[in-house]
Amino acid sequence: MRGAVLLVGSELLDGSVSDRNVAIVAAELARQGVVVARAEIVPDDVGAIADAVRRLAEVSDLLVVTGGLGPTADDVTREGVAQALGVGVHTNVDIRASIEKRLAARGLPAEGATRQASFPKGTVPIRNPVGSAPGFGGEIGSCRFWVLPGVPPEVVEMIGPLVDGLPTPQSGWGWHRLVATAGLSELRAAAILDAGGFVVPARVSLGFLPGAGGVKLRLFAPRGAPATELDETEQSIRSLLGSAALPESGLPESLVAALAAERRTVATAESCTGGAIGVRITDVPGASSVYLGGIVSYSDRAKIERLGLAPELLARHGTVSEPVVRAMVEGARAAFEAWLAVAVTGIAGPSGGSPEKPVGTVWIAVSDPAGTETRRFVFPGSREMVRERTVNKALEMAYRRVRPA
Amino acid sequence: MRGAVLLVGSELLDGSVSDRNVAIVAAELARQGVVVARAEIVPDDVGAIADAVRRLAEVSDLLVVTGGLGPTADDVTREGVAQALGVGVHTNVDIRASIEKRLAARGLPAEGATRQASFPKGTVPIRNPVGSAPGFGGEIGSCRFWVLPGVPPEVVEMIGPLVDGLPTPQSGWGWHRLVATAGLSELRAAAILDAGGFVVPARVSLGFLPGAGGVKLRLFAPRGAPATELDETEQSIRSLLGSAALPESGLPESLVAALAAERRTVATAESCTGGAIGVRITDVPGASSVYLGGIVSYSDRAKIERLGLAPELLARHGTVSEPVVRAMVEGARAAFEAWLAVAVTGIAGPSGGSPEKPVGTVWIAVSDPAGTETRRFVFPGSREMVRERTVNKALEMAYRRVRPA
Repeated sequence: MRGAVLLVGSELLDGSVSDRNVAIVAAELARQGVVVARAEIVPDDVGAIADAVRRLAEVSDLLVVTGGLGPTADDVTREGVAQALGVGVHTNVDIRASIEKRLAARGLPAEGATRQASFPKGTVPIRNPVGSAPGFGGEIGSCRFWVLPGVPPEVVEMIGPLVDGLPTPQSGWGWHRLVATAGLSELRAAAILDAGGFVVPARVSLGFLPGAGGVKLRLFAPRGAPATELDETEQSIRSLLGSAALPESGLPESLVAALAAERRTVATAESCTGGAIGVRITDVPGASSVYLGGIVSYSDRAKIERLGLAPELLARHGTVSEPVVRAMVEGARAAFEAWLAVAVTGIAGPSGGSPEKPVGTVWIAVSDPAGTETRRFVFPGSREMVRERTVNKALEMAYRRVRPA
Repeated sequence: MRGAVLLVGSELLDGSVSDRNVAIVAAELARQGVVVARAEIVPDDVGAIADAVRRLAEVSDLLVVTGGLGPTADDVTREGVAQALGVGVHTNVDIRASIEKRLAARGLPAEGATRQASFPKGTVPIRNPVGSAPGFGGEIGSCRFWVLPGVPPEVVEMIGPLVDGLPTPQSGWGWHRLVATAGLSELRAAAILDAGGFVVPARVSLGFLPGAGGVKLRLFAPRGAPATELDETEQSIRSLLGSAALPESGLPESLVAALAAERRTVATAESCTGGAIGVRITDVPGASSVYLGGIVSYSDRAKIERLGLAPELLARHGTVSEPVVRAMVEGARAAFEAWLAVAVTGIAGPSGGSPEKPVGTVWIAVSDPAGTETRRFVFPGSREMVRERTVNKALEMAYRRVRPA
């Protein structure tokens, strides 16, 4: 089945918000072999919605629409879909009564209820277990469609059961595999595969996904290709990339798994990243078996009092320096009695740079029973970019202490 | 001018990655009054790219394409745009030489260079100051187009100068304003405006942007409407919402600004959020004037040794309890000698829940010289959703200690 996604929301087109629903919908549809071949974003406008629904329904077997089902006047997806279907909108009185009950319990007026309980004629309401707006589904020509609210957690909850109800695809469907790497660039990965004589099998396609933590290689086998073909391709790629290929889906996942396998622990000391290394580690379910905790030593006083740095060290070398990051990582390792510690201190910008320490200057340290390693980087770009690269490089250096290259 | 964005990349359609470029491009184009009226996502496929370019060029004055300019065989945006233009692709030998030089310096083979130095005939290369892939620009019918690499930091660097070169829009262009709120739901905000007799002026449109930290109200005035109309509308909304309307663009920005205005400081103690409150605060440039630091006390031992909790307290009440969050927040406030401290402890899931403390149970505390306040929540949804809601509620409670409702 050929899928399409339509996102409705002016906020997605004016720089306010970035979409998260295409990835959620695509990952769910893929479970039943539906490939999303196209996505569109349109503003909260009845005509634009109706046009897009018609256009996408013509080239798809299944269309998922998200957004524009709220209770306020700017939410016009119901009207847009109704226009595409050439029907009117009517109110489901049972659903209206239940929404009104919920609103009254929260002391809110009932006006939004009629709007949220309205559906294009001929469509079927879809229950929303976590929010107030029900969705609805139906058919336009030969294309089935589901219309869901735009809030990502609600999309997650609602689409699962809908996908479960799709016909199971024929066996042998492979979808895609990701091979994550530790800090490898796109060009470097391609060069390694070329040098190793790697040839992409006819029915598999290979994509390169650049990212701050290292390129990810994406393998895709269309419906009908045997699953073993994908397994074998993944195996060849992994053996050519060697230790640069990560065992798990990314750096934090691989770090947590490697530490857990060795029954080892980790702690963090962060300055310019504000706690983001700890967040990436604890994003991984089960991180509590290896992550003891961290110190966000954003101020000099916190470095002195929480990590035991000598005030003279900061005065003599400055906050962003090798001696300081070394004392931070060793202080964190001692404070948490961890096997491994990671520390960062740097100038994320936009201000705070100087000729000898420009914005983007970052010191990263890792320490374990074998010793302490420190490295200096000057990362280009915005505050956000410097912080993101710092976190990824720190995770890579930490991973390499558990699984050397 | 009417804008459109085309994103090229199979990874954007298979659940691997979420787009960040539409928001970047839209925010930049808005500086010169170009409204993005539609965006599309297509896979790395020559035919799909060519179709989309033709389709979008027909309805737009300016089309920005991102992605598919890498050095590997899956990068086919050059060929797709060439097909839309009905021309061939040729290699710019000067650009090839300079890319080859850069590759040689990094010890990489030169194969990718020819690909990255190739452009559809009749187009003009666009310099990339931060990456290896140049972009290119041209015209298809009456539509101007720019093709840029897909990596968001490169888009940021490349689009700025291009937008600077656009004709300046007529004065009076208002674009949009955001009024952020502290924890207000979409329905609640709409109810307050209705009750206050608020009417949206004819030339202004009002949208509601739901989010975990509180709905944001988005005002938009089309080209030609006087700027004062937007100012007045924003003022009416702010006076009706009262203290629920935030002075800055969001909760962390408002917290940092309020603390800075009062010359006060803040520290954090985080368990289930792993450092995410510190990250949100330090996302704000200038946070260093108010944020002293934090303890990520992910393990019980860290709570005891880093925050001074009595082991009996944890044993008697459990990690997720009122006495523990109270001791955490007071421990953090004392450790950092901060005016304000925020602490959270909870069960983010997916495992770790029990009948009396289900997954999603979170205790949040704030403490300042006037005393300590603790609250219990049970947040629905996934690990990610529980963590996000915890961070937002903690920031809201912290902000309210500085600026009471």
